[in-house]
Amino acid sequence: MGILKDLYQPSLTLLTDLYQITMAYAYWKSGMADREAVFHLFFRKKPFKGGYAISCGLELVIDYLLNFKFDASDLNYLRTLEGSDKEPLFSEEFVRYLGDIRFECSIDAIPEGKFVFENEPIIRVKGPLLQAQLIETALLNIINYQTLVATKSARICQAAGGAPVMEFGLRRAQGFDGGLAASRAAYIGGCAATSNVLAGKLFGIPVRGTHAHSWVMSFGNELEAFREYAKAMENNCTLLVDTYDTRQGILNAIEVGKTLESCGKKLLGVRIDSGDLAYLSQMAREMLDAAGLKETQIIASNDLDEYILESLHEQDAKLDALGVGTKLVTAYDQPALGGVYKLSALKNSTGEWESKLKLSEQSIKINIPGIQQVKRFYKDGQFVADMIYDTELGHAQKPTIVDPNDQTRLKRINIDKLEFENLLVPIFENGKSVYELPSLEEIRNTVHSEMKRIHSGIKRFVNPHAYVVGLEQNLYEKRLRIILEQRKLIS
Amino acid sequence: MGILKDLYQPSLTLLTDLYQITMAYAYWKSGMADREAVFHLFFRKKPFKGGYAISCGLELVIDYLLNFKFDASDLNYLRTLEGSDKEPLFSEEFVRYLGDIRFECSIDAIPEGKFVFENEPIIRVKGPLLQAQLIETALLNIINYQTLVATKSARICQAAGGAPVMEFGLRRAQGFDGGLAASRAAYIGGCAATSNVLAGKLFGIPVRGTHAHSWVMSFGNELEAFREYAKAMENNCTLLVDTYDTRQGILNAIEVGKTLESCGKKLLGVRIDSGDLAYLSQMAREMLDAAGLKETQIIASNDLDEYILESLHEQDAKLDALGVGTKLVTAYDQPALGGVYKLSALKNSTGEWESKLKLSEQSIKINIPGIQQVKRFYKDGQFVADMIYDTELGHAQKPTIVDPNDQTRLKRINIDKLEFENLLVPIFENGKSVYELPSLEEIRNTVHSEMKRIHSGIKRFVNPHAYVVGLEQNLYEKRLRIILEQRKLIS
Repeated sequence: MGILKDLYQPSLTLLTDLYQITMAYAYWKSGMADREAVFHLFFRKKPFKGGYAISCGLELVIDYLLNFKFDASDLNYLRTLEGSDKEPLFSEEFVRYLGDIRFECSIDAIPEGKFVFENEPIIRVKGPLLQAQLIETALLNIINYQTLVATKSARICQAAGGAPVMEFGLRRAQGFDGGLAASRAAYIGGCAATSNVLAGKLFGIPVRGTHAHSWVMSFGNELEAFREYAKAMENNCTLLVDTYDTRQGILNAIEVGKTLESCGKKLLGVRIDSGDLAYLSQMAREMLDAAGLKETQIIASNDLDEYILESLHEQDAKLDALGVGTKLVTAYDQPALGGVYKLSALKNSTGEWESKLKLSEQSIKINIPGIQQVKRFYKDGQFVADMIYDTELGHAQKPTIVDPNDQTRLKRINIDKLEFENLLVPIFENGKSVYELPSLEEIRNTVHSEMKRIHSGIKRFVNPHAYVVGLEQNLYEKRLRIILEQRKLIS
Repeated sequence: MGILKDLYQPSLTLLTDLYQITMAYAYWKSGMADREAVFHLFFRKKPFKGGYAISCGLELVIDYLLNFKFDASDLNYLRTLEGSDKEPLFSEEFVRYLGDIRFECSIDAIPEGKFVFENEPIIRVKGPLLQAQLIETALLNIINYQTLVATKSARICQAAGGAPVMEFGLRRAQGFDGGLAASRAAYIGGCAATSNVLAGKLFGIPVRGTHAHSWVMSFGNELEAFREYAKAMENNCTLLVDTYDTRQGILNAIEVGKTLESCGKKLLGVRIDSGDLAYLSQMAREMLDAAGLKETQIIASNDLDEYILESLHEQDAKLDALGVGTKLVTAYDQPALGGVYKLSALKNSTGEWESKLKLSEQSIKINIPGIQQVKRFYKDGQFVADMIYDTELGHAQKPTIVDPNDQTRLKRINIDKLEFENLLVPIFENGKSVYELPSLEEIRNTVHSEMKRIHSGIKRFVNPHAYVVGLEQNLYEKRLRIILEQRKLIS
């Protein structure tokens, strides 16, 4: 009877796939545990058939890694696991080794709130093979979902065209943390507030809320219900007007609004949660204006997403604020980002880096080898192109970017005329945190300012323009060579 | 830097929508807080366009309610909230009132693992209006997601036709708890194991796992990698054969399998994670059999769901076990169940129950009034029909069930010839837990045996047969009368 208390306990180190631990065991046994390795976390396709994604989740990754330690109960659980012959899966010596692990990887990452694109390493992990492998699952879990929701939120806020968007998703979210983590990422992506009180408490996100239909149903009639609510919430009164009949609801809200006015207060808003939001919002605006309640806002909710908001905008709906729930927190039209975490370099026994690459029948699934960094080029502050390059190979003075899936698509960069930055910055050095965390507010502001630096075609929802992101030519050629070698076409 | 530690703290009572607390404040101020109310939690449409859903989440609901208490830090946070005039949103007296709340509702619910259908109350809450309202969000969050994933799991296991299904979803799940809660529900729905080690530790679910492509890439060649893995995992060795070339991978696995055999061990399985799973599994079976490794299993993964499994089955794929991740834990094709929580009865000031009903432009959104129970009828152990009835109205000796959306669809029940049971059972009585929790194993067995009691047409994925579930005639007529009264067509 204490699942939730057990769940919400200090150690999350076992929040990983078993195969990370069986591999750790095998690395440890084969003497490979401390071999230095490089992994990159990236996605192969931008979510929602869109033109961009927003990096998100790094703070949670840092937090996870700072707390990374197998505690006594974790070790005791691992001792209970058995192989097919009912013998212990792991030796006692190995279990103790796990208990002694101190995280010592170096991590570079793209800060939260930045635009990220396909194939770009969002996180680069360098360190002992065993450790770098063990953290895969948690890093993917965090970055995949946070990036997905921050991106969805940015799209929805973009479609809302400046009207504040409130995230109302907790009741349909995937688990408690599906709600909490969503509130964080939704705020970063641009949402103005959340209904989730615990997210307000933990993350400092503004909280908002009005009342439910059940409030209205609890009284003899709607007008009485509105009056009672206004009495209790005279400094924060928004009324839900569609419990029985929206037109009558607005009339009742106006009556209460006039009463509030006569006491020096005001009716902040009316909320419409069903029906034709374009038509009803126009009707509500006319009725409120005619009654002199020009400042009373109209808030809409009911399964909204970026596509419906775009349509409402085209229909000239009169909406001052929006409540968005299910479609945002579950990223309904694509509920998972397919981020992956791939080994791309490993030091051999003589201490030299060897590039690593996994083949696949599907070209898109072949990873990029080497130790990577991303250079983003700007002109007059606007995004021009992103170049993934190998830090060992470097790049030419005037580099060329090649599309990894189509070598005929090239872009030559005249670096003299462009500003640039390296996107990956140091986060951990040999297990020590070296990164100064921005506040949630600062991350949110990053998203806001980045949105202005990118061409509108890239932000379009339907068939967006493809931003140039590719491999620096040396890296492109190296990758091609390794693929052909491994396929034994050359050698 | 302690978000996760803060998050995984004892009090989850603020994991609710702010409007629950603003309504609570307004109920408290208007003297309605202790008015006895009845809410029902139900969904209106079965998920995945399917014919059934599996109830899931009750244990977590019980756990949440047993821990329901605003702690000092919760109350301090609520004190910081402000209205539009920068005055505190809640009075100090109310905040203290919240701190003193002891949960005292009575709850009846359908046990976990049972089939549930549209409009049926999965949970019925009866108690003080303020309290019954406050718990809405958490109950919806839990039941919506748990029921969604248990149902998805049951569908996938049904399509797997007896081959064990392992849940591998953590890396793409929606937040940490999106992973953990999913592992629980997936196990209940029929999965045999999870890759999620923390779910193994907390819930006692069997954990399984092999190795990743990175294991193979860490070595000079695949055969060396397989040998090293088998050395470490000789009692639990399954090899992933598609890192470079699947045919060669199987040949390498066979070589290792023969070595294991010669030491009295065996190769448990080979896993294929890409490519044409039908073709490759047939090839693998032939190769393994020819090499005398007839007991070595073939395990497939790679974006599987019930539709792909059905297709693989039709193609006579040779699969002994399956790994299912993203599509299961995110319920990819419908990532949210639209469960709702509706007020349906309230005692008036003279202590009599009044039925409550919310109108809507969409008939399907009009709730069912009264205090409800569900009777399920069986013939020879097989499901016949479900009848939602009003416990105050009772039902005729030989009742008639009416489809709430089409009164021409009736079913007369000859109760003498049928067995039946009331699905909702007591969980809390006046805040005290009165329910003996079944084990996860027992719940899982319930699903397994219920699957055999329902007609195969209802379990079909495409255009399933609609199981009869409707309103008992008295309740149907009462609901119709209230709708017409509220629409003022009669009165």
